[in-house]
Amino acid sequence: MKEKFYKYIVDLQNSISSKLERIDGKASFQEDLWERPEGGGGKTRVIENGDVFEKGGVNISAVHGALPTSMQAYFGVEEADFFACGLSLVLHPVNPFVPTVHANWRYFEMYDKEGNIVDQWFGGGQDLTPYYLFDEDAQHFHKICKEACDKHHPDFYATYKAKCDQYFYNSHRQEARGIGGLFFDYCKASEEMSMEQWYNFVTEVGDSFLNSYVPIVEKRRMLSYSQNERNWQEIRRGRYVEFNLVHDKGTLFGLKTNGRIESILMSLPPKVQWIYDHHPKKGSEEDRLLDVLKDPKDWIVS
Amino acid sequence: MKEKFYKYIVDLQNSISSKLERIDGKASFQEDLWERPEGGGGKTRVIENGDVFEKGGVNISAVHGALPTSMQAYFGVEEADFFACGLSLVLHPVNPFVPTVHANWRYFEMYDKEGNIVDQWFGGGQDLTPYYLFDEDAQHFHKICKEACDKHHPDFYATYKAKCDQYFYNSHRQEARGIGGLFFDYCKASEEMSMEQWYNFVTEVGDSFLNSYVPIVEKRRMLSYSQNERNWQEIRRGRYVEFNLVHDKGTLFGLKTNGRIESILMSLPPKVQWIYDHHPKKGSEEDRLLDVLKDPKDWIVS
Repeated sequence: MKEKFYKYIVDLQNSISSKLERIDGKASFQEDLWERPEGGGGKTRVIENGDVFEKGGVNISAVHGALPTSMQAYFGVEEADFFACGLSLVLHPVNPFVPTVHANWRYFEMYDKEGNIVDQWFGGGQDLTPYYLFDEDAQHFHKICKEACDKHHPDFYATYKAKCDQYFYNSHRQEARGIGGLFFDYCKASEEMSMEQWYNFVTEVGDSFLNSYVPIVEKRRMLSYSQNERNWQEIRRGRYVEFNLVHDKGTLFGLKTNGRIESILMSLPPKVQWIYDHHPKKGSEEDRLLDVLKDPKDWIVS
Repeated sequence: MKEKFYKYIVDLQNSISSKLERIDGKASFQEDLWERPEGGGGKTRVIENGDVFEKGGVNISAVHGALPTSMQAYFGVEEADFFACGLSLVLHPVNPFVPTVHANWRYFEMYDKEGNIVDQWFGGGQDLTPYYLFDEDAQHFHKICKEACDKHHPDFYATYKAKCDQYFYNSHRQEARGIGGLFFDYCKASEEMSMEQWYNFVTEVGDSFLNSYVPIVEKRRMLSYSQNERNWQEIRRGRYVEFNLVHDKGTLFGLKTNGRIESILMSLPPKVQWIYDHHPKKGSEEDRLLDVLKDPKDWIVS
């Protein structure tokens, strides 16, 4: 399974990054290969200063070795060896009307002293962070997420949509990071789902990514915007930074397992503002976004 | 002691904020009073878009009540009541040749069920974060710190300078946040130092703050700078954000005790950049700063 899923993310990185380059039309991805001293490494691809993408990364990594002491409590195990591989992407567009997107699909194995697999699971998801909210974009994104889920289990969309709303939440602000999507973790073999079936589900979601995001980019990339709208985008990007550095378990896992710092923190936006006690005008589009982020919404139009 | 120290920080907030307003000449502090639902509150004073200070805060707070469950393990206690008060300041200047400064002086009490004090201590310190390093500024800052310490104990400066270098360290970058200063915590009554003597020490340090920082501001505020130097400042401010959100225990304490979020996060810089894998030119002034931040330096000139 680990070879099969790793091959999948290698191919997916290629197809996603070449599609994004064609969309951008100006910037191309810079590739950095890196090795982890304790085992494994990754292939980081970062795009900067494009016409569409101000900054973004589409990274894969496959790391292995002894599970760091700092992570043992996290997984509720004692000394163990692990393998983890995945694709992580974050895209921060220039235009404040184009949302930021994040996605991650990953696979874990844990081993006993003899090297037997004692545990294995998939995790992942994708979520959208708009600066200005077009309801139809949120509906489109969730529709694609739901279609991918529905092919595998009738409950998956509702379950993983709810988990996404819970996870990408800035509890210190009592505010969602964005309008959600899917989040799943510890997807293990059960009577209902074999690892093979989980693989089919996770790769279905991965394959759906470009369809969930690209139509939104194409629709909004040419909208003209003002400096005020750009400022609002930079202020909201500050909330993105707060989530990633204070709450995000993926960032924490990377920092604690001695991952490559520049590959982990590629998720941070290029230009960010923090203004003291900023509040948009009541009734403005900015204010409407905040209202929606207070309470997760159902985005499926029946 | 708590009334006495609280009165001290009220007065110190007034003297520091009025001096900083005179230095800035353009912006003035906006004051916000806030209450903590579980007990206590604070007086936040923030300055923005000044001629000298792009953003800064000089805040006091005094909070009390039941120690939140999330903080019990941190202090190694079970259910307890607490009182905490302190002054926190952070100043982010416009000009990249003027360093950012942070200071905090605080006092804690813990109580048993009958309301008797079972533990009490002071903590605090001040540290400097330059974007361009003038050795004489670092020397001046540390000289004032040392003079304040030396009046109270011959070992304090060396001890608390070392603790500062340890504490304000971005371990994920293997790099100090800045060029240090003083950091002390859990300063409790002992055979050598009564609480009264600790009070005298902490207030001596607090009183020395303006002398440690203002001469540096006056010396550098009129230096002209380029967009490149400004960009470097914004990139380095990103490291400041990383420290405060990933490592800083004061920020964590504030978030976990339901402090006022805008008062806690006033420490975040106004404009920040994250550029993927940025490295300054070998031998440049920017590169020299990074070299110094790799290894804490002795700044006392004998």
